[in-house]
Formats: sequence, C-alpha cells, structure tokens
Amino acid sequence: MNNRDFRQKPKGKRDHGRDHAKPSDRPPRLPGNQIWLFGVHAVLAALANPQRKVRRIVLTAEALKTHAPGIMKGRALRPLPGEEVIDRRDLDALLPPSAVHQGIAALVEHLDSPGIEDIARLVQGRDHAVVMLLDQVTDPHNVGAILRSAAAFGALAVVVPDRHSPEETGTLAKSASGALEVMPLVRVTNMVRALEQLKDAGFWTAGLAGEATQTIAQAKLSGKIALVMGAEGEGLRRLTREHCDHLVKLPISPLVESLNVSNAAAIALYELARDQDLAGNAASH
Amino acid sequence: MNNRDFRQKPKGKRDHGRDHAKPSDRPPRLPGNQIWLFGVHAVLAALANPQRKVRRIVLTAEALKTHAPGIMKGRALRPLPGEEVIDRRDLDALLPPSAVHQGIAALVEHLDSPGIEDIARLVQGRDHAVVMLLDQVTDPHNVGAILRSAAAFGALAVVVPDRHSPEETGTLAKSASGALEVMPLVRVTNMVRALEQLKDAGFWTAGLAGEATQTIAQAKLSGKIALVMGAEGEGLRRLTREHCDHLVKLPISPLVESLNVSNAAAIALYELARDQDLAGNAASH
Repeated sequence: MNNRDFRQKPKGKRDHGRDHAKPSDRPPRLPGNQIWLFGVHAVLAALANPQRKVRRIVLTAEALKTHAPGIMKGRALRPLPGEEVIDRRDLDALLPPSAVHQGIAALVEHLDSPGIEDIARLVQGRDHAVVMLLDQVTDPHNVGAILRSAAAFGALAVVVPDRHSPEETGTLAKSASGALEVMPLVRVTNMVRALEQLKDAGFWTAGLAGEATQTIAQAKLSGKIALVMGAEGEGLRRLTREHCDHLVKLPISPLVESLNVSNAAAIALYELARDQDLAGNAASH
Repeated sequence: MNNRDFRQKPKGKRDHGRDHAKPSDRPPRLPGNQIWLFGVHAVLAALANPQRKVRRIVLTAEALKTHAPGIMKGRALRPLPGEEVIDRRDLDALLPPSAVHQGIAALVEHLDSPGIEDIARLVQGRDHAVVMLLDQVTDPHNVGAILRSAAAFGALAVVVPDRHSPEETGTLAKSASGALEVMPLVRVTNMVRALEQLKDAGFWTAGLAGEATQTIAQAKLSGKIALVMGAEGEGLRRLTREHCDHLVKLPISPLVESLNVSNAAAIALYELARDQDLAGNAASH
C-alpha cells in the first residue's frame, strides 16, 4: 500500500473547515497557504515529494555541503527554485524563534488533505485498515510524532478536529521527521460525524481510555479500525466516547497515571499492526 | 514489585561518575544537589515521595486552590516547608526561561540513584526483569517520557551514561510526569562496563537497531533483559553494539526511517511486558 495515493486525488476534496484554521506559530506576513518547513528530515522529505509545492530553499553553506545530493534528488522529480545560501543568523530570522532548523529550511505550500469520504472510498474491498483520530491533542510535537508512528505502522490517515489542534506548522513537520509528506493529516469540523462516516465505511471505532476493562491486545481488534485518542490528562470527551464501539486500554502499572500521548499512540498503532505484517516484514527475510 | 525499593537502599551507593555531572539548564546559583521541579504532576509526585527532600514549595494563589489537597497529602508523610504563594511573574523568574510550570514549583534535592550493583542484587532469584539503557539519548523530553514508559511497563531502572545525557533537570522531571519519583535514573561512567555487569547478573543484552534481521517480537526475549537504545539518527555505537547478545528491530514501514526515540522505547518496553503481565492486569478483573 502506498499512502501517497491520497496526494494524487483531485483538488477540492479538502474538508472545508480547514479554511477557518487560525495559524499560531507561523512566521508573520506569509500568504495563508504557505509555511516554512525546517530541519533536515522535514525539508528533504518535502523536496522528495512531487506533490509538495516548494517556493524557496534556504540553507547555510555548511548545510549545502552535506545536503546537496538530497536537493538534487528532489530537483530530479520536478523543477525547484534555486537554493539560497545564507548565514545561520539570517536563517534564524526567517523562522519562528525556537525553530531547531539544522541549517536548512524551505518555504512550501500546504498539502491538500483528503477528506473522510476519500478514506471511505480507499478502503472499499479491504480487509484491514487503521485510521487514528486525535481528539484535542494540541502539542505539535506530539501530533508530529504520532504522524511518524502512523506512517511507520501502516495507518491510512491521522484525523484531527479543525479546532483545538495544532496547525500544520514547521514544528509539527519537524517532529514528524518527514512523515507529513506520506501520512495525510485530515482536519474535520466534527469528530463525531467523522466517526459515524467511518462506521458507515465499515470501520469499528475503538477509544483508548484508562478506565476500559480490556487491554487493546485482549480486545483482539481486527478488520477496519478507527482508533480514537483523547487529550493527555483529559482523556476522551463524553460525546466521542459514546460513539466508540469498544473502549480499550494499555496494560500500564498503577505506578503511573498515563503515558505521554504520542507514546500511547505509538504502542496502540504497533499493537494493531503487530499481527498483520502491514510493514511487509516477514516478506523481507 | 515496588520500584521504590531502590530508594530505601543506604546512601553512598551512587555511581561516582555522578560527581562530575555538568548541569546545563538549571537556574543559576543553586547548590549542586538542588533543582527546581515544576509542573503539577512532577511537583505533586515529589511531595508524595518521602525519599524526596523538599526545600521550598512555591505556587500561585490559583494553583494553591486546586492543589492544596495534594500538598497536604505530602505533608502527612513527613514535614514539608510552608508553601510560598507568589505571582506568576515571580515564579517565572525563579525558573528556566521556557519552564511550563502550571503555577507550581518545588526546590528539591536530587534523589540518590542506585548503582548497577544494586540492580544486580535486586534481581537475584528473579525470573524476569527489564532494564533500559539509553546510549546518548540527549533530549530531556525524550528521557523524561522514557522514564514514564519504563515505570508504566515495570522496568527496574533506566541507565544513562554520565556524559551525553541530560542532567536530572526540571524539564526531564516535567516530561516524566512524576515517574522520576518511582523510576531510578542510573548514571554510569561506562556503558559497556554496565552491560557486562548486567550480563554477570544474568541479563541478556539486546540492542534496538534498524538493521537487525529479527523484530523484537520474533526474538521472543524472555528472562532478564537489558535493552539498549541508541541516539535517534545515530543508532547504537559500535562498541555498545558489540556487547549486545541480540540485535532486534521494530517492524516499521519503509515509508519512515525510524521512530521518535521515546516512541520506539515505549513500544519495546510494551512488547517486553506484553506477555508477562508485569502490570498485574489480568488480576484486576
């Protein structure tokens, strides 16, 4: 399966709620559909993604020495702007104050996101599929790490509510370490409606909740699974919970209250992929 | 099993390498053995840990309203200094610039750490045990999250080299969300020597490495396991790798190069605990 399939869908399919998104840590005075990506993995993955429109490539002389081959690889796929070599301090000034840019950044346009209806179409006739829904997970580092784990364990998409979720910022992309290019981040205006649409498409809905009576392994979830994670500390919202077919938990010691939300998501995604060989692992040896 | 056992060992057992530690993001002018903890979970867990020596408790009036019961709970265990109610701005000034303190902080002394020899003594006669070793994982958020996962999945300790590892800072403690009080962070001067000491104590050593030929589940690791994680990107150092009995990997898709290191650690700890019910899960229902 290739998650890039989604990127090749025609435009105009993005959830309309996206238009109301309020960017927070973007650098000022950028057109609404542009962001600065920074950090080696995030930038090189964007250059290597033909669906990603790139406006500028800015890097230090030192970074150019190391990453020229990566840039050439992207340029072989489609025309790219020439790279601008600048001082580290000038690069700092282009990016948000705390950006760990590793000497390289690219000004890009947002990717088009698929909608839930695209996911529904894609899974027709499939036996297995996993979609992860994040109900008000707000830290861009966590959402980025979850995108990375979702790509690692063969999920189809990560769904977030348009409000109470981080914008597709450089920080999120940096934490995703390139996974933003291959894992669709689907924004929806109504999580409950998204859950119901996924049910209609043949998904079972499962919520991760500390108070569940069975672990995710004990539940032996199979088929098409829509897994919902709540905010760290808060857990699932009542309404979201009510639309889950199953509640499952991770088997954690009473010594700790909960796990970091991206750690919990990684384990849940791993558990769902564990017996399914989504990664094609057994085939490789 | 109670991980707090370690805390009750006599003093003077800590690895001597600790004395050379060079704190980086501690607030200036504190005695060497004191740190500011901040954030609700980290502070309340410290107050609830009788082994944690507390010098000051500082919080906003608003935080006091919410957390007075937590403070009283700690005070019931041993004498504690009176709480100092101050403005948020004054609290900001006490702590490192980026501290997300949630209105509450405590000035505490470092906990005494056990040494590898204490772990060796503790596991005598045990069938199962897990120790996690972090070879140059430097981000305090990651080390904190790993401590939390280690506590969640019943590991005995997290071992880090004294150099190239974050100090036991407030940021690490905040990310550990209280787990620093129950999960020993063992600093050693020489990771290879620590691995050999663990082997002598009956541990199998396993390194997590992307180029391994078997997954951690396929390896069916059992008994006493010392699991080694390398730095994100770099992986295991050659010398560390040579002292591993097994190399194992996580079954990730070729779409991503690797996982976030705390996510990978969480999955590995989960997998090792998965069939062992370390969390006493089956017994609870």
